[in-house]
Amino acid sequence: MKVKLEKVTIQTKKPTEAINVTPQVKKIVEGSSIKNGLVNIISLHTSAGIAVTEGLSCLEEDIFFILDKLIPKEGSYHHARYLDSYGRLGINAHTHLKSILTGMSTFFPIQNGKMVMSGTQTIYFLEFDGPLCRTFCVQVLGE
Amino acid sequence: MKVKLEKVTIQTKKPTEAINVTPQVKKIVEGSSIKNGLVNIISLHTSAGIAVTEGLSCLEEDIFFILDKLIPKEGSYHHARYLDSYGRLGINAHTHLKSILTGMSTFFPIQNGKMVMSGTQTIYFLEFDGPLCRTFCVQVLGE
Amino acid sequence: MKVKLEKVTIQTKKPTEAINVTPQVKKIVEGSSIKNGLVNIISLHTSAGIAVTEGLSCLEEDIFFILDKLIPKEGSYHHARYLDSYGRLGINAHTHLKSILTGMSTFFPIQNGKMVMSGTQTIYFLEFDGPLCRTFCVQVLGE
Repeated sequence: MKVKLEKVTIQTKKPTEAINVTPQVKKIVEGSSIKNGLVNIISLHTSAGIAVTEGLSCLEEDIFFILDKLIPKEGSYHHARYLDSYGRLGINAHTHLKSILTGMSTFFPIQNGKMVMSGTQTIYFLEFDGPLCRTFCVQVLGE
Repeated sequence: MKVKLEKVTIQTKKPTEAINVTPQVKKIVEGSSIKNGLVNIISLHTSAGIAVTEGLSCLEEDIFFILDKLIPKEGSYHHARYLDSYGRLGINAHTHLKSILTGMSTFFPIQNGKMVMSGTQTIYFLEFDGPLCRTFCVQVLGE
Repeated sequence: MKVKLEKVTIQTKKPTEAINVTPQVKKIVEGSSIKNGLVNIISLHTSAGIAVTEGLSCLEEDIFFILDKLIPKEGSYHHARYLDSYGRLGINAHTHLKSILTGMSTFFPIQNGKMVMSGTQTIYFLEFDGPLCRTFCVQVLGE
Protein backbone atom coordinates (compact mmCIF):
# COMPACT_ATOMS: atom_id res chain seq x y z
CA MET A 1 0.00 0.00 0.00
CA LYS A 2 1.25 3.46 -0.93
CA VAL A 3 0.16 6.67 0.78
CA LYS A 4 1.02 10.07 -0.70
CA LEU A 5 0.04 13.37 0.85
CA GLU A 6 0.35 16.80 -0.70
CA LYS A 7 -0.72 20.10 0.76
CA VAL A 8 -2.01 22.68 -1.72
CA THR A 9 -2.02 26.35 -0.77
CA ILE A 10 -4.32 28.86 -2.44
CA GLN A 11 -4.82 32.58 -1.90
CA THR A 12 -8.47 33.55 -2.04
CA LYS A 13 -9.19 37.08 -3.22
CA LYS A 14 -12.77 37.79 -2.18
CA PRO A 15 -14.97 37.36 0.89
CA THR A 16 -16.68 34.42 -0.81
CA GLU A 17 -15.26 32.48 -3.69
CA ALA A 18 -15.72 29.04 -5.27
CA ILE A 19 -12.38 27.80 -6.59
CA ASN A 20 -12.36 24.83 -8.96
CA VAL A 21 -9.53 22.65 -7.65
CA THR A 22 -10.27 19.63 -9.85
CA PRO A 23 -7.24 20.16 -12.15
CA GLN A 24 -4.84 20.29 -9.18
CA VAL A 25 -6.35 17.17 -7.63
CA LYS A 26 -6.21 15.25 -10.93
CA LYS A 27 -2.58 16.27 -11.45
CA ILE A 28 -1.58 14.95 -8.01
CA VAL A 29 -3.46 11.68 -8.60
CA GLU A 30 -1.92 11.18 -12.03
CA GLY A 31 1.57 12.00 -10.71
CA SER A 32 1.26 9.65 -7.74
CA SER A 33 1.95 6.37 -9.59
CA ILE A 34 -1.00 4.90 -7.65
CA LYS A 35 -3.18 2.91 -10.04
CA ASN A 36 -6.09 1.76 -7.88
CA GLY A 37 -7.27 3.32 -4.67
CA LEU A 38 -8.75 6.45 -3.22
CA VAL A 39 -8.11 10.19 -3.27
CA ASN A 40 -9.17 12.29 -0.28
CA ILE A 41 -9.49 16.07 -0.47
CA ILE A 42 -9.61 17.74 2.97
CA SER A 43 -9.65 21.42 3.88
CA LEU A 44 -7.64 22.41 6.96
CA HIS A 45 -10.05 25.23 7.90
CA THR A 46 -13.30 25.72 9.81
CA SER A 47 -14.67 28.67 7.81
CA ALA A 48 -14.35 27.16 4.33
CA GLY A 49 -15.91 24.15 2.63
CA ILE A 50 -15.30 21.49 0.02
CA ALA A 51 -18.21 20.67 -2.29
CA VAL A 52 -18.81 18.87 -5.57
CA THR A 53 -21.22 20.19 -8.17
CA GLU A 54 -21.46 21.03 -11.85
CA GLY A 55 -18.75 23.47 -12.94
CA LEU A 56 -20.83 26.50 -13.88
CA SER A 57 -20.29 30.06 -12.67
CA CYS A 58 -24.04 30.55 -12.17
CA LEU A 59 -24.12 27.57 -9.81
CA GLU A 60 -21.09 28.92 -7.95
CA GLU A 61 -23.13 32.06 -7.29
CA ASP A 62 -26.15 30.01 -6.24
CA ILE A 63 -24.14 28.15 -3.60
CA PHE A 64 -23.41 31.41 -1.76
CA PHE A 65 -26.90 32.76 -2.47
CA ILE A 66 -28.64 29.82 -0.83
CA LEU A 67 -26.18 29.52 2.06
CA ASP A 68 -26.63 33.24 2.83
CA LYS A 69 -30.37 32.73 2.82
CA LEU A 70 -30.16 29.75 5.19
CA ILE A 71 -27.41 31.17 7.43
CA PRO A 72 -27.40 34.98 7.19
CA LYS A 73 -24.25 36.92 8.05
CA GLU A 74 -26.19 38.92 10.63
CA GLY A 75 -28.01 36.81 13.19
CA SER A 76 -28.35 36.26 16.93
CA TYR A 77 -25.28 34.05 17.05
CA HIS A 78 -23.69 33.10 20.38
CA HIS A 79 -20.30 33.46 18.67
CA ALA A 80 -21.00 37.23 18.23
CA ARG A 81 -19.35 38.16 21.54
CA TYR A 82 -15.92 39.15 22.82
CA LEU A 83 -13.62 36.13 22.67
CA ASP A 84 -10.41 36.10 24.70
CA SER A 85 -8.78 33.71 22.25
CA TYR A 86 -9.49 36.12 19.37
CA GLY A 87 -8.91 39.40 21.26
CA ARG A 88 -12.01 40.68 19.50
CA LEU A 89 -15.67 39.99 18.73
CA GLY A 90 -16.52 36.73 16.97
CA ILE A 91 -18.06 38.01 13.75
CA ASN A 92 -17.94 34.97 11.52
CA ALA A 93 -20.33 32.44 13.09
CA HIS A 94 -22.11 32.16 9.73
CA THR A 95 -18.87 31.08 7.99
CA HIS A 96 -18.31 28.20 10.44
CA LEU A 97 -21.93 27.10 10.14
CA LYS A 98 -21.83 27.17 6.34
CA SER A 99 -18.72 24.99 6.47
CA ILE A 100 -20.59 22.42 8.59
CA LEU A 101 -23.47 22.31 6.08
CA THR A 102 -21.29 21.82 2.99
CA GLY A 103 -18.68 19.70 4.70
CA MET A 104 -14.93 20.18 4.47
CA SER A 105 -13.84 17.04 2.66
CA THR A 106 -14.69 14.70 -0.18
CA PHE A 107 -13.21 11.65 -1.92
CA PHE A 108 -13.22 9.81 -5.22
CA PRO A 109 -12.08 6.35 -6.31
CA ILE A 110 -8.99 5.88 -8.50
CA GLN A 111 -9.01 3.21 -11.20
CA ASN A 112 -6.23 2.59 -13.73
CA GLY A 113 -4.49 5.75 -12.54
CA LYS A 114 -7.49 8.03 -13.14
CA MET A 115 -10.11 9.52 -10.83
CA VAL A 116 -13.51 7.94 -11.31
CA MET A 117 -15.88 10.88 -11.65
CA SER A 118 -18.42 12.10 -14.19
CA GLY A 119 -17.80 14.94 -16.59
CA THR A 120 -20.04 17.33 -14.68
CA GLN A 121 -18.53 16.66 -11.23
CA THR A 122 -16.26 19.53 -10.24
CA ILE A 123 -14.47 19.79 -6.88
CA TYR A 124 -14.72 23.23 -5.33
CA PHE A 125 -12.87 24.85 -2.45
CA LEU A 126 -15.48 27.21 -0.99
CA GLU A 127 -14.15 30.35 0.71
CA PHE A 128 -16.67 31.76 3.19
CA ASP A 129 -14.39 34.15 5.11
CA GLY A 130 -11.84 35.55 2.65
CA PRO A 131 -9.60 36.81 1.43
CA LEU A 132 -7.22 34.42 3.17
CA CYS A 133 -4.36 32.06 2.46
CA ARG A 134 -5.88 28.55 2.57
CA THR A 135 -4.52 25.00 2.56
CA PHE A 136 -6.11 21.70 1.66
CA CYS A 137 -4.70 18.18 1.66
CA VAL A 138 -4.80 15.82 -1.29
CA GLN A 139 -4.10 12.30 -0.07
CA VAL A 140 -3.75 9.38 -2.48
CA LEU A 141 -3.91 5.84 -1.06
CA GLY A 142 -3.69 2.60 -2.98
CA GLU A 143 -1.32 0.49 -4.96
CA MET B 1 -4.09 -4.35 -0.11
CA LYS B 2 -7.02 -5.17 -2.36
CA VAL B 3 -9.17 -2.60 -4.16
CA LYS B 4 -12.45 -3.57 -5.83
CA LEU B 5 -14.71 -1.16 -7.64
CA GLU B 6 -18.21 -1.83 -8.93
CA LYS B 7 -20.54 0.58 -10.65
CA VAL B 8 -24.24 0.13 -9.90
CA THR B 9 -26.82 1.55 -12.29
CA ILE B 10 -30.36 2.33 -11.23
CA GLN B 11 -33.32 3.77 -13.09
CA THR B 12 -35.28 6.26 -11.00
CA LYS B 13 -38.95 6.57 -11.80
CA LYS B 14 -40.09 9.82 -10.20
CA PRO B 15 -38.88 13.42 -9.94
CA THR B 16 -37.77 12.72 -6.36
CA GLU B 17 -37.15 9.31 -4.92
CA ALA B 18 -35.20 7.80 -2.02
CA ILE B 19 -33.85 4.40 -3.04
CA ASN B 20 -32.53 2.07 -0.33
CA VAL B 21 -29.27 0.75 -1.78
CA THR B 22 -28.05 -0.97 1.40
CA PRO B 23 -28.73 -4.52 0.13
CA GLN B 24 -26.71 -3.90 -3.05
CA VAL B 25 -23.81 -2.39 -1.10
CA LYS B 26 -23.77 -5.26 1.42
CA LYS B 27 -23.80 -7.83 -1.38
CA ILE B 28 -20.78 -6.23 -3.06
CA VAL B 29 -18.90 -6.07 0.26
CA GLU B 30 -19.70 -9.67 1.12
CA GLY B 31 -18.73 -10.83 -2.37
CA SER B 32 -15.44 -8.94 -2.37
CA SER B 33 -13.41 -11.37 -0.20
CA ILE B 34 -12.12 -8.30 1.69
CA LYS B 35 -12.29 -9.00 5.43
CA ASN B 36 -11.13 -5.74 7.01
CA GLY B 37 -11.21 -2.32 5.43
CA LEU B 38 -13.52 0.31 4.10
CA VAL B 39 -16.45 0.60 1.70
CA ASN B 40 -17.04 3.86 -0.14
CA ILE B 41 -20.35 4.67 -1.82
CA ILE B 42 -20.11 7.57 -4.29
CA SER B 43 -22.73 8.99 -6.65
CA LEU B 44 -21.46 10.11 -10.06
CA HIS B 45 -24.03 12.91 -10.35
CA THR B 46 -24.47 16.53 -9.27
CA SER B 47 -28.26 16.56 -8.91
CA ALA B 48 -28.61 13.52 -6.64
CA GLY B 49 -27.39 12.72 -3.15
CA ILE B 50 -26.29 9.91 -0.88
CA ALA B 51 -27.58 9.98 2.70
CA VAL B 52 -27.84 7.63 5.65
CA THR B 53 -30.89 7.58 7.89
CA GLU B 54 -33.42 5.21 9.41
CA GLY B 55 -35.18 3.12 6.77
CA LEU B 56 -38.75 4.39 7.06
CA SER B 57 -40.94 5.60 4.21
CA CYS B 58 -42.20 8.52 6.32
CA LEU B 59 -38.62 9.72 6.81
CA GLU B 60 -37.96 9.36 3.08
CA GLU B 61 -40.82 11.78 2.50
CA ASP B 62 -39.50 14.13 5.20
CA ILE B 63 -36.10 14.38 3.49
CA PHE B 64 -37.70 15.87 0.39
CA PHE B 65 -40.19 17.92 2.43
CA ILE B 66 -37.45 19.66 4.42
CA LEU B 67 -35.11 20.10 1.45
CA ASP B 68 -37.92 21.69 -0.58
CA LYS B 69 -38.59 24.04 2.30
CA LEU B 70 -34.92 25.04 2.57
CA ILE B 71 -34.22 25.14 -1.18
CA PRO B 72 -37.48 25.70 -3.09
CA LYS B 73 -37.75 24.65 -6.70
CA GLU B 74 -38.73 28.17 -7.68
CA GLY B 75 -36.28 30.83 -6.54
CA SER B 76 -34.11 33.66 -7.83
CA TYR B 77 -31.33 31.30 -8.86
CA HIS B 78 -28.48 32.49 -11.09
CA HIS B 79 -28.62 29.10 -12.80
CA ALA B 80 -32.15 29.98 -14.08
CA ARG B 81 -30.86 31.46 -17.33
CA TYR B 82 -30.07 30.35 -20.85
CA LEU B 83 -26.96 28.14 -20.81
CA ASP B 84 -25.04 27.49 -24.01
CA SER B 85 -23.77 24.16 -22.68
CA TYR B 86 -27.36 23.01 -22.06
CA GLY B 87 -28.95 24.67 -25.11
CA ARG B 88 -31.81 25.67 -22.80
CA LEU B 89 -32.66 27.37 -19.51
CA GLY B 90 -31.05 26.02 -16.33
CA ILE B 91 -34.10 24.94 -14.38
CA ASN B 92 -32.62 22.62 -11.77
CA ALA B 93 -30.48 24.85 -9.53
CA HIS B 94 -32.37 23.52 -6.53
CA THR B 95 -31.39 19.93 -7.35
CA HIS B 96 -27.67 20.77 -7.41
CA LEU B 97 -27.94 22.72 -4.16
CA LYS B 98 -29.81 19.90 -2.42
CA SER B 99 -27.05 17.53 -3.49
CA ILE B 100 -24.45 19.80 -1.86
CA LEU B 101 -26.41 19.85 1.42
CA THR B 102 -26.86 16.07 1.67
CA GLY B 103 -23.52 15.18 0.16
CA MET B 104 -22.93 12.65 -2.60
CA SER B 105 -20.92 10.00 -0.82
CA THR B 106 -20.59 8.04 2.39
CA PHE B 107 -18.49 5.21 3.82
CA PHE B 108 -18.56 2.44 6.41
CA PRO B 109 -15.91 0.22 7.98
CA ILE B 110 -15.68 -3.49 7.14
CA GLN B 111 -14.78 -5.95 9.89
CA ASN B 112 -14.67 -9.74 9.50
CA GLY B 113 -16.21 -9.40 6.05
CA LYS B 114 -19.25 -7.43 7.21
CA MET B 115 -20.12 -3.74 7.10
CA VAL B 116 -20.05 -2.15 10.55
CA MET B 117 -23.35 -0.28 10.80
CA SER B 118 -26.30 -0.22 13.16
CA GLY B 119 -29.64 -1.83 12.39
CA THR B 120 -31.33 1.50 11.76
CA GLN B 121 -28.68 2.88 9.39
CA THR B 122 -29.91 2.67 5.81
CA ILE B 123 -27.98 4.00 2.79
CA TYR B 124 -30.14 5.97 0.38
CA PHE B 125 -29.55 7.16 -3.15
CA LEU B 126 -31.55 10.41 -3.30
CA GLU B 127 -32.93 11.37 -6.69
CA PHE B 128 -33.63 15.11 -6.90
CA ASP B 129 -34.02 15.46 -10.69
CA GLY B 130 -35.62 12.29 -12.01
CA PRO B 131 -36.62 10.17 -13.63
CA LEU B 132 -33.10 9.39 -14.86
CA CYS B 133 -30.65 6.56 -15.26
CA ARG B 134 -28.14 6.94 -12.42
CA THR B 135 -24.84 5.35 -11.47
CA PHE B 136 -23.00 5.10 -8.19
CA CYS B 137 -19.69 3.48 -7.30
CA VAL B 138 -19.19 0.94 -4.54
CA GLN B 139 -15.49 0.69 -3.76
CA VAL B 140 -14.14 -1.88 -1.29
CA LEU B 141 -10.57 -1.41 0.01
CA GLY B 142 -8.76 -3.58 2.52
CA GLU B 143 -7.28 -7.00 2.98
CA MET C 1 -1.75 -2.60 5.09
CA LYS C 2 -3.02 -2.48 8.67
CA VAL C 3 -6.64 -1.85 9.65
CA LYS C 4 -7.60 -1.12 13.24
CA LEU C 5 -11.13 -0.48 14.44
CA GLU C 6 -12.21 0.74 17.85
CA LYS C 7 -15.71 1.51 19.02
CA VAL C 8 -16.05 4.39 21.45
CA THR C 9 -19.14 4.62 23.68
CA ILE C 10 -20.30 7.88 25.21
CA GLN C 11 -23.26 8.73 27.40
CA THR C 12 -24.86 12.02 26.42
CA LYS C 13 -26.57 13.93 29.21
CA LYS C 14 -28.79 16.48 27.51
CA PRO C 15 -31.30 16.57 24.62
CA THR C 16 -28.68 18.31 22.48
CA GLU C 17 -24.98 18.29 23.15
CA ALA C 18 -21.76 18.83 21.19
CA ILE C 19 -19.06 16.52 22.54
CA ASN C 20 -15.45 17.17 21.54
CA VAL C 21 -14.11 13.72 20.68
CA THR C 22 -10.80 14.91 19.21
CA PRO C 23 -8.67 13.73 22.16
CA GLN C 24 -10.13 10.20 21.99
CA VAL C 25 -9.59 10.03 18.22
CA LYS C 26 -5.98 11.27 18.50
CA LYS C 27 -5.23 8.75 21.24
CA ILE C 28 -6.48 5.86 19.11
CA VAL C 29 -4.46 7.08 16.09
CA GLU C 30 -1.30 7.52 18.15
CA GLY C 31 -1.73 4.13 19.80
CA SER C 32 -2.36 2.33 16.49
CA SER C 33 1.29 2.11 15.34
CA ILE C 34 0.05 3.21 11.90
CA LYS C 35 2.38 5.90 10.55
CA ASN C 36 0.80 6.93 7.26
CA GLY C 37 -2.82 6.52 6.27
CA LEU C 38 -6.30 7.57 7.12
CA VAL C 39 -8.54 7.80 10.18
CA ASN C 40 -12.31 7.50 9.74
CA ILE C 41 -14.76 8.61 12.43
CA ILE C 42 -18.28 7.22 11.92
CA SER C 43 -21.35 7.48 14.13
CA LEU C 44 -23.55 4.39 14.33
CA HIS C 45 -26.77 6.41 14.76
CA THR C 46 -29.35 8.19 12.63
CA SER C 47 -30.30 10.97 15.08
CA ALA C 48 -26.80 12.24 15.83
CA GLY C 49 -24.10 13.85 13.71
CA ILE C 50 -20.35 14.21 13.32
CA ALA C 51 -19.05 17.68 12.44
CA VAL C 52 -15.76 19.54 12.43
CA THR C 53 -15.52 23.18 13.50
CA GLU C 54 -13.57 25.48 15.79
CA GLY C 55 -13.63 24.29 19.41
CA LEU C 56 -15.59 27.10 21.06
CA SER C 57 -18.62 26.69 23.33
CA CYS C 58 -20.37 29.63 21.64
CA LEU C 59 -20.08 27.86 18.27
CA GLU C 60 -21.38 24.64 19.80
CA GLU C 61 -24.50 26.58 20.80
CA ASP C 62 -24.75 28.13 17.33
CA ILE C 63 -24.78 24.71 15.66
CA PHE C 64 -27.99 23.77 17.50
CA PHE C 65 -29.41 27.30 17.14
CA ILE C 66 -29.11 27.30 13.36
CA LEU C 67 -30.21 23.68 12.93
CA ASP C 68 -33.32 24.35 15.05
CA LYS C 69 -34.06 27.36 12.87
CA LEU C 70 -33.70 25.34 9.66
CA ILE C 71 -35.39 22.17 10.92
CA PRO C 72 -37.72 23.03 13.82
CA LYS C 73 -38.66 20.36 16.33
CA GLU C 74 -42.34 20.98 15.61
CA GLY C 75 -43.26 20.71 11.95
CA SER C 76 -45.59 18.90 9.57
CA TYR C 77 -43.34 15.87 9.38
CA HIS C 78 -44.57 12.61 7.86
CA HIS C 79 -42.63 10.80 10.58
CA ALA C 80 -45.00 12.33 13.21
CA ARG C 81 -47.43 9.39 13.10
CA TYR C 82 -47.97 6.09 14.86
CA LEU C 83 -45.21 3.67 13.85
CA ASP C 84 -45.66 -0.04 14.41
CA SER C 85 -41.91 -0.58 14.64
CA TYR C 86 -41.70 2.03 17.44
CA GLY C 87 -45.00 1.18 19.19
CA ARG C 88 -45.52 4.93 19.52
CA LEU C 89 -45.60 8.20 17.58
CA GLY C 90 -42.49 9.21 15.63
CA ILE C 91 -41.53 12.43 17.37
CA ASN C 92 -37.95 12.92 16.29
CA ALA C 93 -38.09 13.57 12.54
CA HIS C 94 -36.09 16.76 13.09
CA THR C 95 -33.23 14.80 14.71
CA HIS C 96 -32.88 12.47 11.71
CA LEU C 97 -33.00 15.41 9.29
CA LYS C 98 -30.37 17.36 11.24
CA SER C 99 -28.14 14.29 11.09
CA ILE C 100 -28.46 14.22 7.29
CA LEU C 101 -27.48 17.90 7.03
CA THR C 102 -24.37 17.65 9.22
CA GLY C 103 -23.40 14.18 8.09
CA MET C 104 -22.47 11.30 10.38
CA SER C 105 -18.84 10.74 9.51
CA THR C 106 -15.57 12.49 8.77
CA PHE C 107 -11.93 11.59 8.11
CA PHE C 108 -8.42 12.98 8.37
CA PRO C 109 -5.05 11.94 6.93
CA ILE C 110 -2.33 10.47 9.15
CA GLN C 111 1.29 11.39 8.50
CA ASN C 112 4.26 10.30 10.62
CA GLY C 113 1.87 8.86 13.20
CA LYS C 114 -0.09 12.09 13.70
CA MET C 115 -3.44 13.32 12.39
CA VAL C 116 -3.05 16.08 9.82
CA MET C 117 -5.44 18.80 11.00
CA SER C 118 -5.21 22.47 11.88
CA GLY C 119 -5.22 23.78 15.43
CA THR C 120 -8.77 25.08 15.15
CA GLN C 121 -10.28 21.88 13.72
CA THR C 122 -12.21 20.04 16.42
CA ILE C 123 -14.20 16.84 15.85
CA TYR C 124 -17.62 16.89 17.48
CA PHE C 125 -20.13 14.16 18.15
CA LEU C 126 -23.47 15.99 17.90
CA GLU C 127 -26.31 14.62 19.99
CA PHE C 128 -29.70 15.66 18.60
CA ASP C 129 -31.93 13.24 20.52
CA GLY C 130 -30.40 12.70 23.97
CA PRO C 131 -29.75 11.74 26.56
CA LEU C 132 -28.68 8.40 25.12
CA CYS C 133 -25.81 5.95 25.12
CA ARG C 134 -24.02 6.45 21.79
CA THR C 135 -21.29 4.65 19.87
CA PHE C 136 -18.96 5.79 17.14
CA CYS C 137 -16.24 3.93 15.26
CA VAL C 138 -12.66 5.12 14.91
CA GLN C 139 -10.99 3.22 12.10
CA VAL C 140 -7.29 3.62 11.31
CA LEU C 141 -6.02 2.33 7.96
CA GLY C 142 -2.47 2.53 6.64
CA GLU C 143 0.99 1.22 7.23
